[in-house]
Amino acid sequence: MKELVLGIDIGGTNTKFGFVDNEGNVFGESSSPTWGYPEFDDYLAQLHKQIDAAKAFLGFEAQIVGVGIGAPNGNYYQGTIEKAPNLEWQGSVPFVDKLRQYFPEQPVVLTNDANAAAIGEMTFGVARGMQDFIVFTLGTGLGSGIVANGRLIYGHDGLAGELGHTLVNVFGRQCGCGRKGCLETYVSATGIKRTVYKLLADYTEESSLRGVAYDKLSAKMITEAAIAGDFIARQAFEYTGRVLGMKLADTVAHFSPEAIILFGGLVNAGEHLLKPTRHYMEENMMNIYKGKVKLLVSGLQDKNAAVLGASSLAWQALSG
Amino acid sequence: MKELVLGIDIGGTNTKFGFVDNEGNVFGESSSPTWGYPEFDDYLAQLHKQIDAAKAFLGFEAQIVGVGIGAPNGNYYQGTIEKAPNLEWQGSVPFVDKLRQYFPEQPVVLTNDANAAAIGEMTFGVARGMQDFIVFTLGTGLGSGIVANGRLIYGHDGLAGELGHTLVNVFGRQCGCGRKGCLETYVSATGIKRTVYKLLADYTEESSLRGVAYDKLSAKMITEAAIAGDFIARQAFEYTGRVLGMKLADTVAHFSPEAIILFGGLVNAGEHLLKPTRHYMEENMMNIYKGKVKLLVSGLQDKNAAVLGASSLAWQALSG
Repeated sequence: MKELVLGIDIGGTNTKFGFVDNEGNVFGESSSPTWGYPEFDDYLAQLHKQIDAAKAFLGFEAQIVGVGIGAPNGNYYQGTIEKAPNLEWQGSVPFVDKLRQYFPEQPVVLTNDANAAAIGEMTFGVARGMQDFIVFTLGTGLGSGIVANGRLIYGHDGLAGELGHTLVNVFGRQCGCGRKGCLETYVSATGIKRTVYKLLADYTEESSLRGVAYDKLSAKMITEAAIAGDFIARQAFEYTGRVLGMKLADTVAHFSPEAIILFGGLVNAGEHLLKPTRHYMEENMMNIYKGKVKLLVSGLQDKNAAVLGASSLAWQALSG
Repeated sequence: MKELVLGIDIGGTNTKFGFVDNEGNVFGESSSPTWGYPEFDDYLAQLHKQIDAAKAFLGFEAQIVGVGIGAPNGNYYQGTIEKAPNLEWQGSVPFVDKLRQYFPEQPVVLTNDANAAAIGEMTFGVARGMQDFIVFTLGTGLGSGIVANGRLIYGHDGLAGELGHTLVNVFGRQCGCGRKGCLETYVSATGIKRTVYKLLADYTEESSLRGVAYDKLSAKMITEAAIAGDFIARQAFEYTGRVLGMKLADTVAHFSPEAIILFGGLVNAGEHLLKPTRHYMEENMMNIYKGKVKLLVSGLQDKNAAVLGASSLAWQALSG
């Protein structure tokens, strides 16, 4: 009987899941709605029903030996989701405790999405064999998962690694966290939209993006425009890379990592993002670090990274 | 026969050493000159002679079971001192390899002074029992030693934890590292001197510090003036605490530590430094961290912290 781990990735709209073997092959990928269940127990019952159905359709006998969960505001120590702004459930949700009714004997591990991505890179991606690296997930916000001495850094309360909320500019952009000038207000899908609108105001150049309303503009459009040669879009990536590169120089002074790994849709812009990021990181780093830190693109970029990352949490728990 | 560890702290002028038991009691403290030996082998021979003499004068039978060394630009992985600007020896000095001729069988461990201080706090100071904390040493420069998951963070190349060289202001003060606006140009004994001179220029208030030339001004004088109520000196500590507190908020977003521990002469100013540091750290932190991170004063402040810290490296190696 094949041993598989159940990887679960909780998004605001849907919860994706899949069964993953110890080589990173994913079977029976499916999903269940996250939104529309004000009662958490109802959501979980529906999710479990979908998981059972997907397992029945695998076409081979399988044993679920562990469960890994990536969740917004996931607390590794408590197994809880804490005050996630994009979910319906208020306060602290005891996800792991509740899920145990369906998986009473297997290890069940939960952490935030970026930490799951970091373990995913270490298990199945470009960080295999590395002991010291940092993953940045560039999505609606900016998440980060930090590995040092071969272990994720959870911090004293399980909430370490919020690099999206380090300071770029004390007089900077309003952030969803209530403060101003956080890194994710510049470096994220939302951040680059804000940058495009600022550039459209500052410059007079023609741009395909002048015809798009703010509410309709997506990071994908900006990426495609940059690849097509659009001046404003390219400037937006240049600016995004500059802000990211400067902050990376600070992060390197903390950890001296072997690599920094970028993940998410913005990375599809390739060198339009990587070149300025690398340039400003190198320019702003202390001499002793220059030329030593690899800037890499995620090895899970084209795969179901969230499910893989979540599953790798459980594989790691089983192996350690 | 009593088992003791030899702790060595290498400074630019003198090398201090002492024999430390596993409860942190220091015996036979002494020193040997660092400066004046262009040939490293001559320095080491003299140091060893002094160590032997101090051991002979202990007054009881002792066995040296390990050696710990705190050194500027000390590389833990290599056992080397790398391009230390305040030492006479050029390039990379293979300190541990050379010292082994005198201590061939004991564990010999070397790291930089701030890492040694962090292990010292964990072994004998205020960080006993903590898994996640950061020590800031405020001396001529600003050093930092970071512990996460109960282990020092050395990084990929052994050079992690240079928080003195994170960026405060891109247009800021010239730093000895060749860049501008590094944290240690504001928060260190040298940094507060620079701040005092700026404030003496900006304000017209009377100050006892107006009678002191830049070359004669010390952090100790500024501390004493602040305690005595001097307006300029108090403003200088307020400013120093503000800059430090704001950067600590960023550092907390990386590590979510249980405590941040301050060490060094500036800490003798007590609340003149701690109050603004705490205030601006809390004000600039993300909500999820507020009220959780202890700001502590070193537990080794009045002891021979450098020798204790260095020795604790060896005690840790012996216990692990």
